[in-house]
Amino acid sequence: MADKSFTVAGGGPVGTLLAISLARHGYKVGLYEGRPDSRRTSIYQGKSINIALSDRGWTSLEKIGISAKAKGQAIPMFHRAIHDTAGELSALPYGQEGDAIWSVSRGGINEQLLDIADDEPNISTHFEHRLVDVDFESATATFRVEGDREVVVESDFLFGADGAHSKVRRLAHNLPRFSYSQTYMPQCYIELNIPANPDGSHQLEKNALHIWPRKDFMLIALPNPDGTFTCTLFMNFEGDPSFESLQERSAVEAFFASNFADAMEYLENPIDVFMEKTAAPLFLVQVFPWSFNRKVGLIGDAAHAIVPFYGQGMNCGFEDCAELDALIKKHDHDWDQIFPAYENARKPNGDAIAELSKRNFVEMSDLSGDRRFQLRKKIEAKFSERFPELWTPLYSMVTFSPDVPYAEALRIGDEQNKVMEKIMAMPNIEDDWDKQYVTDRLFDLASESFGDTQ
Amino acid sequence: MADKSFTVAGGGPVGTLLAISLARHGYKVGLYEGRPDSRRTSIYQGKSINIALSDRGWTSLEKIGISAKAKGQAIPMFHRAIHDTAGELSALPYGQEGDAIWSVSRGGINEQLLDIADDEPNISTHFEHRLVDVDFESATATFRVEGDREVVVESDFLFGADGAHSKVRRLAHNLPRFSYSQTYMPQCYIELNIPANPDGSHQLEKNALHIWPRKDFMLIALPNPDGTFTCTLFMNFEGDPSFESLQERSAVEAFFASNFADAMEYLENPIDVFMEKTAAPLFLVQVFPWSFNRKVGLIGDAAHAIVPFYGQGMNCGFEDCAELDALIKKHDHDWDQIFPAYENARKPNGDAIAELSKRNFVEMSDLSGDRRFQLRKKIEAKFSERFPELWTPLYSMVTFSPDVPYAEALRIGDEQNKVMEKIMAMPNIEDDWDKQYVTDRLFDLASESFGDTQ
Repeated sequence: MADKSFTVAGGGPVGTLLAISLARHGYKVGLYEGRPDSRRTSIYQGKSINIALSDRGWTSLEKIGISAKAKGQAIPMFHRAIHDTAGELSALPYGQEGDAIWSVSRGGINEQLLDIADDEPNISTHFEHRLVDVDFESATATFRVEGDREVVVESDFLFGADGAHSKVRRLAHNLPRFSYSQTYMPQCYIELNIPANPDGSHQLEKNALHIWPRKDFMLIALPNPDGTFTCTLFMNFEGDPSFESLQERSAVEAFFASNFADAMEYLENPIDVFMEKTAAPLFLVQVFPWSFNRKVGLIGDAAHAIVPFYGQGMNCGFEDCAELDALIKKHDHDWDQIFPAYENARKPNGDAIAELSKRNFVEMSDLSGDRRFQLRKKIEAKFSERFPELWTPLYSMVTFSPDVPYAEALRIGDEQNKVMEKIMAMPNIEDDWDKQYVTDRLFDLASESFGDTQ
Repeated sequence: MADKSFTVAGGGPVGTLLAISLARHGYKVGLYEGRPDSRRTSIYQGKSINIALSDRGWTSLEKIGISAKAKGQAIPMFHRAIHDTAGELSALPYGQEGDAIWSVSRGGINEQLLDIADDEPNISTHFEHRLVDVDFESATATFRVEGDREVVVESDFLFGADGAHSKVRRLAHNLPRFSYSQTYMPQCYIELNIPANPDGSHQLEKNALHIWPRKDFMLIALPNPDGTFTCTLFMNFEGDPSFESLQERSAVEAFFASNFADAMEYLENPIDVFMEKTAAPLFLVQVFPWSFNRKVGLIGDAAHAIVPFYGQGMNCGFEDCAELDALIKKHDHDWDQIFPAYENARKPNGDAIAELSKRNFVEMSDLSGDRRFQLRKKIEAKFSERFPELWTPLYSMVTFSPDVPYAEALRIGDEQNKVMEKIMAMPNIEDDWDKQYVTDRLFDLASESFGDTQ
């Protein structure tokens, strides 16, 4: 029953994990990647240097039977380290004691998965094969290789795991009844760097995700194992301030000096980098269906490119793979069943994490620096600790509760929002937040909303 | 200041109206249409045979200085004629006494506008010119004409008025930061015909829009001046029943017999037509921006293709033209101001009518046949008549209140919904709807919600 073959277009983390999963189910898998093998070249050519991985990602890897070797090299971040304009620091924990999101090297995890794929006899991996065409009836793919030679690959099924700019998806664009949306955010971004100390240690606190929230824009920093931090400045493309308005070097200097004074002593030539680099756009892609003719599917960013503000992009892609893995078992290799079951299960969750990620820009760039928001988080955390069956904060559901689907987290989170608005509207909440009568009120409201459902 | 030139791509009703507006402001306009001139060929090749035009459309024509000659040939429809499965008829008025939506021939109104354009010395009209390329920096357009010859047209500005499948929009697809979505509805449609009586009169009541609401699908019929009705069957593409599930002739016959028994005596070979025709998809397109480099703009369906369930497509396109016409005056021909003002004014309204049109499928296909929904409409109509300053029903705001922007109508409509849910939840509403205490309650709720704003 598994004497079928798959072409997987895209050898990034999601495509490679998918190939491993399919191979272990007995399928012959051809894994094709347009870029060179980063293990044989000096520079990793994937887009982001480090990304956040959290429980959904680790759990999905485990479900597919991959021990999370990468976790050993990942850096746990237990809290947000908030830098205000005066340079004052405050810590906003991500969850309960011990809960962490993990800064991982995208290239590192990709290479580890490629090593595992190399050990699978059912997988043949081909680098420097650029996808140029797909026949959506037969799942036949055409790749272009060195010297502009074309290679035609026949297989029973094909998956596009080729990322936010997916060629498979673009080729699907003119298929009948294909719903498609690309949405650009007002923000763009550039990456900056904080180098390591001479002894290789980190200049800022290592086990935190650093945020300089400035309302309409923000700077963030994620730690790397080599002592550096990869920083990202998110700011509007147009308006004031914006990448468009900050053209003069003197204006850029003034902007950094007044907004990121405490970061300036760490950042490596931020003004030069800002002046040289072109800001990259941020966009979401949402499509439906995720499969065509029961022959071709989309997975990962190819199916649901999202913005990075929840740190869930790769987690969501890994979950797609784990879902598919479970459905292969459930439907006993019947792909006429698996494709629709897969897209119907995952589409609502892809849409939900897209929505949550969009919203989280405001939470990071504005609210995380807001005293009342921090108080709300504190009330929720304390209540959740006492009544975990009644309340898991939204961030924790998304990040630390892999059993709660994204769509469910979004729905519950919106209900929680209504409850917390009532709590935060209580007259003396800032002084009395810790008092019993506030807890009692929250208990009553939460029991009413979630007593039966959560 | 108006010594500039425009290329208008698309000679449908919106493109032609735009050309007239621009010409009357003193611009040189080249109006280009891919199809032949329908006035010189026997068959009109535009998609829909008849469409609904209502106050927004007529008002927009007047604002641009065009007397609505077409209204003389249009057929007013004062109510929905609801056909239930037993063949029983009920009438659901569209608004107050005398309010009507108008069934117009798309080809007829197009040709009348083209005639007006012919009289404008500033307009040169070119048929059988298929747009193949646009330079978005210079507004230079390339058209293909007979014999595959290419014609390059230079002008200062260009508008894409080339409809739901707009080539200008598709060419804009790869411009930086272009947000785009195409959304397919679950429903598709085919057109059927009800012929005239031998004496040229209508077989069904002429001054009504006929609906056979069957929940997940529906048949509608709009009157034509020649005594015929153009009917449209809307039904899901897949599922049961659907265009996919109804493949066997016997199944189609049974479907029509059980659902449209009373229509069968009027329809012209519906089974043959159903078996022969391919169901056409329904889709929405939403994009932003609607202009590029202050040189190229989108207008009408090219900017906001919507589904036909509110009968507002052409009305919205005509409103775009009227808005632009007003902005040319307001900003005194300064297109650096006009383009952004135009898209910022119209985009929220395009989005709102897209949302309203989607929702209206349920209202037409399901609710219009629902006794409680009809009661609700009756309560609203009566209350609105007594307290017009407090309440205009949503349908009337959209259709008969051109001064209320679509976005405002949507917002107020959602508020009204909340109020009416409370009214319809009153214990004896079905018996007491006409009693004073119900009116008093509605007055209180409406005053609370709309006392200051509406």
